[in-house]
Amino acid sequence: MLFIRKCKLLNACTDRFVSEIFLIRSVHKTHSFNKFLTTENVNPNLKCIDYAIRGLLFERARNIEKELLEGASKPFKNVLHLNIGDPQSLGQPPITFLRQVLTLVTHPVLLDNKIFPEDAKIRAREILAKCPGHSAGSYSDACGMEIIRRQIAKYIEDRDKIPSHWKWCYIGHGASDVAKKFFNILKVDKDGLKPGILNPSPGYPFYLATIAELGMKRIDYLLDEDQNWNININELQRTLNESRNTCNPRVIVVINPGNPTSHVMSRNSIEEIVKFAHKENLIIMADEVYQHNIFKPDCNFVSFKKVMNDLGEPYSNVELVSLMSISKGYYAESGIKGGFGEVLNMDPEVTPMFVKSISAMLCPSVLAQAAVYASVNPPKPNEPSYEQFLHETGSILGALKTSASIAEESFNSLEGVSCNRIEGSIFGFPQITIPKRAIEAANKMGVSPDEFYALELLSETGICVVPGSGFKQPPGKYFIRLTLVPKPDELHKIMERFGKFHHKFLRNFSYHSTI
Amino acid sequence: MLFIRKCKLLNACTDRFVSEIFLIRSVHKTHSFNKFLTTENVNPNLKCIDYAIRGLLFERARNIEKELLEGASKPFKNVLHLNIGDPQSLGQPPITFLRQVLTLVTHPVLLDNKIFPEDAKIRAREILAKCPGHSAGSYSDACGMEIIRRQIAKYIEDRDKIPSHWKWCYIGHGASDVAKKFFNILKVDKDGLKPGILNPSPGYPFYLATIAELGMKRIDYLLDEDQNWNININELQRTLNESRNTCNPRVIVVINPGNPTSHVMSRNSIEEIVKFAHKENLIIMADEVYQHNIFKPDCNFVSFKKVMNDLGEPYSNVELVSLMSISKGYYAESGIKGGFGEVLNMDPEVTPMFVKSISAMLCPSVLAQAAVYASVNPPKPNEPSYEQFLHETGSILGALKTSASIAEESFNSLEGVSCNRIEGSIFGFPQITIPKRAIEAANKMGVSPDEFYALELLSETGICVVPGSGFKQPPGKYFIRLTLVPKPDELHKIMERFGKFHHKFLRNFSYHSTI
Repeated sequence: MLFIRKCKLLNACTDRFVSEIFLIRSVHKTHSFNKFLTTENVNPNLKCIDYAIRGLLFERARNIEKELLEGASKPFKNVLHLNIGDPQSLGQPPITFLRQVLTLVTHPVLLDNKIFPEDAKIRAREILAKCPGHSAGSYSDACGMEIIRRQIAKYIEDRDKIPSHWKWCYIGHGASDVAKKFFNILKVDKDGLKPGILNPSPGYPFYLATIAELGMKRIDYLLDEDQNWNININELQRTLNESRNTCNPRVIVVINPGNPTSHVMSRNSIEEIVKFAHKENLIIMADEVYQHNIFKPDCNFVSFKKVMNDLGEPYSNVELVSLMSISKGYYAESGIKGGFGEVLNMDPEVTPMFVKSISAMLCPSVLAQAAVYASVNPPKPNEPSYEQFLHETGSILGALKTSASIAEESFNSLEGVSCNRIEGSIFGFPQITIPKRAIEAANKMGVSPDEFYALELLSETGICVVPGSGFKQPPGKYFIRLTLVPKPDELHKIMERFGKFHHKFLRNFSYHSTI
Repeated sequence: MLFIRKCKLLNACTDRFVSEIFLIRSVHKTHSFNKFLTTENVNPNLKCIDYAIRGLLFERARNIEKELLEGASKPFKNVLHLNIGDPQSLGQPPITFLRQVLTLVTHPVLLDNKIFPEDAKIRAREILAKCPGHSAGSYSDACGMEIIRRQIAKYIEDRDKIPSHWKWCYIGHGASDVAKKFFNILKVDKDGLKPGILNPSPGYPFYLATIAELGMKRIDYLLDEDQNWNININELQRTLNESRNTCNPRVIVVINPGNPTSHVMSRNSIEEIVKFAHKENLIIMADEVYQHNIFKPDCNFVSFKKVMNDLGEPYSNVELVSLMSISKGYYAESGIKGGFGEVLNMDPEVTPMFVKSISAMLCPSVLAQAAVYASVNPPKPNEPSYEQFLHETGSILGALKTSASIAEESFNSLEGVSCNRIEGSIFGFPQITIPKRAIEAANKMGVSPDEFYALELLSETGICVVPGSGFKQPPGKYFIRLTLVPKPDELHKIMERFGKFHHKFLRNFSYHSTI
């Protein structure tokens, strides 16, 4: 019902999409033909998927963009896509060194060209030497090229100062691919109960969608907004205990630095989670893809692996998947789809099954792997690209840090808006107190209050954000998530527009308003 | 038990892998710790996966390569990987135009460089203009960029002379990704029965692995070797009828040109299948990735879509997924992982669910998409790269055609070997009559006779092929599949080595032999 209402809303707003469906129907005269695949006999798990980042707001934004192209008059010229963690779409430049390596691997005739620096050439030659036929057009090993997995292990060793092994490192079509493949291996019912995944709330929609698609049971555990989004272990315990009646809990997902919450976990908090996982027989999936993006001087990124190791046995034996990606951080190569996971303490008898399940899909893109190689093997101090690399990464992280401060300050200066410290990642996640009249208007429209707020924000300003409900926000509280990638001076202007919109929204939906 | 025997075989043969596992165990002292994820509680579907192309032979070949690197003495210098359809690994050069477009999309500063032709620059600019932030590092739409999907639709229209629509064209992380996502949407039990997939036997191992992984029921239907691997509809009907007791058949997979069978389906055969699918309420998944590789003057590629259209209603309304890939044909960019599927006649109410299930994985690699764009939008007669493109594709297909003839002739000249016409694709799939003593030796070793033959071939000559059992060969018949990519003169020598090995094998395992 809600779905139908949403469709109506979309249709009312525009749109050519519906008419295209009718075009398609008429071309194929499908209405006179019984379909073999219908909504009645599709995979029921897919009906439960709701991928917020590409949801209603995203569709609405696309339609507005088309209207603008057709010359429609709006109070803004462009839609500003702050809904997606996609820095390059917002103008963040790629890191030159990574693109150079990738270019040389793609087109090796350029290896003789003087415009490319020697360190990029060295990386490209190293990769090509290990490609069958010396071409990136050949399949690689299904879990990734050994040379690249070895470099990943070295990167992790350098980061944590404890051993890694290349066979623990799996390269995927993005980190999400590794996560999904790992969830897939533990998909088995036990005593009639589905496997359960403890998932942070608010958390990253990918996990919501994937757990639903695989037909697993999601167990939402609340992050504590009042404790800077840290986990309250008592609350976690209560949630887990309750869940044991309805599923067989097997994994706890943690995201550090937080998405959408932008908090950086303290060592103490990580220790608590590791001990909890050990006590409760849980595997830890640590999404650590924003490990390079830390903004506050009193915050450090500490990996789950490092903490486990420092705690020693038995905690160092907890099964852990740690995810990292080139889609995030200063690389932000979301379109290239390279990521990896280090899988620790996996039963050696399970490993061949995991590898076998990966092998059927042949291999991750060799170009994505080459980009991963460049990312974990960046220019060294004595290499020609080093200065440029330092400059580029420094200026990206510096700008993000400033933007985070601007956003945090601006949000907290607005009536009915509050925002925790933005310590890392690339997001702001302010809480919005939505007036009762706006909640009533949202209900009438068949959307949630935060969706209503975000739709209004989009229509008035062109700023596209994700409503908090997409992240399973705590009940009765309303949030939005927005990406802080625009440069500080731009973000300053955006926050001004946001502030003006917010004031107007409060005014319009106050009981004193006559609208 | 067979698995353990295979492991023993592998271990006996070499190997450092086992000792590495022990290393891993000891580093993590895992033997003193109960694992949460064990072989007892993994996804049972994964236990059924047997991915032949990356199976026992592949592992053995890898070990031999390591032994050779360490200076071991063998009757050959290199392993020749004829086990995998991976032309570039065997020296087939990439198509220059595709790599140029990809290079320019990756590193747009080169757009000003004179060494790149204007037509490649035009394609790259067209793609970049539609990338958010004008960068391939941004996410694209989850089903692929609209501009590229439109070009795919145009390619299909030009091929078949009937309409396509860009919204029917889904780009994936290879064609296999599109196939898997499609299988996934129809994964639902009905009346306690699993969905059934009619799959050709012999057929491509990807389908075996994916059907197993998704927990669906595979229904093997035999291709008729005596009828040049065409489908015998009576046999298909019998198979389907039998299967209805154990599953709910929903899809028929067809591979044209055949893999591993290398036959090209006649229009008549396709018509029969379409009518059968319509009568039996089946969706057709047509794997048409080798559509460019046709070697015999009396064979033409005709798409399932074209035949359905020509048959008219009601057959033109059958639900169809047609797969195409840049990993195959003259592009052979297996490592780049770009493929697409045209999904015809899908219920418009199912489409949003399909799209939603794709959206959670964000998007296919933009670089892979750019490669797809170049492949479906190659140089035109008036463009600067046209001559070179014609020359490159012509020489690749010409060499393949000659190699196919050489292989076909050589196989059929050998005692106990017979091979159907190699009409298309890139494979030879000869039947081998394996002597009874060799079958006994295989049984003792715990491997199938064709695996035994292939292992001996590998050990004696370094030629790595896939045993026919990996493709579900017809019972009691033994085949091997090998890739015909090596250049004609090389292939000639390979066939000589193969012939000598085969004679020796027959001699050794004849009842007159004293071995």
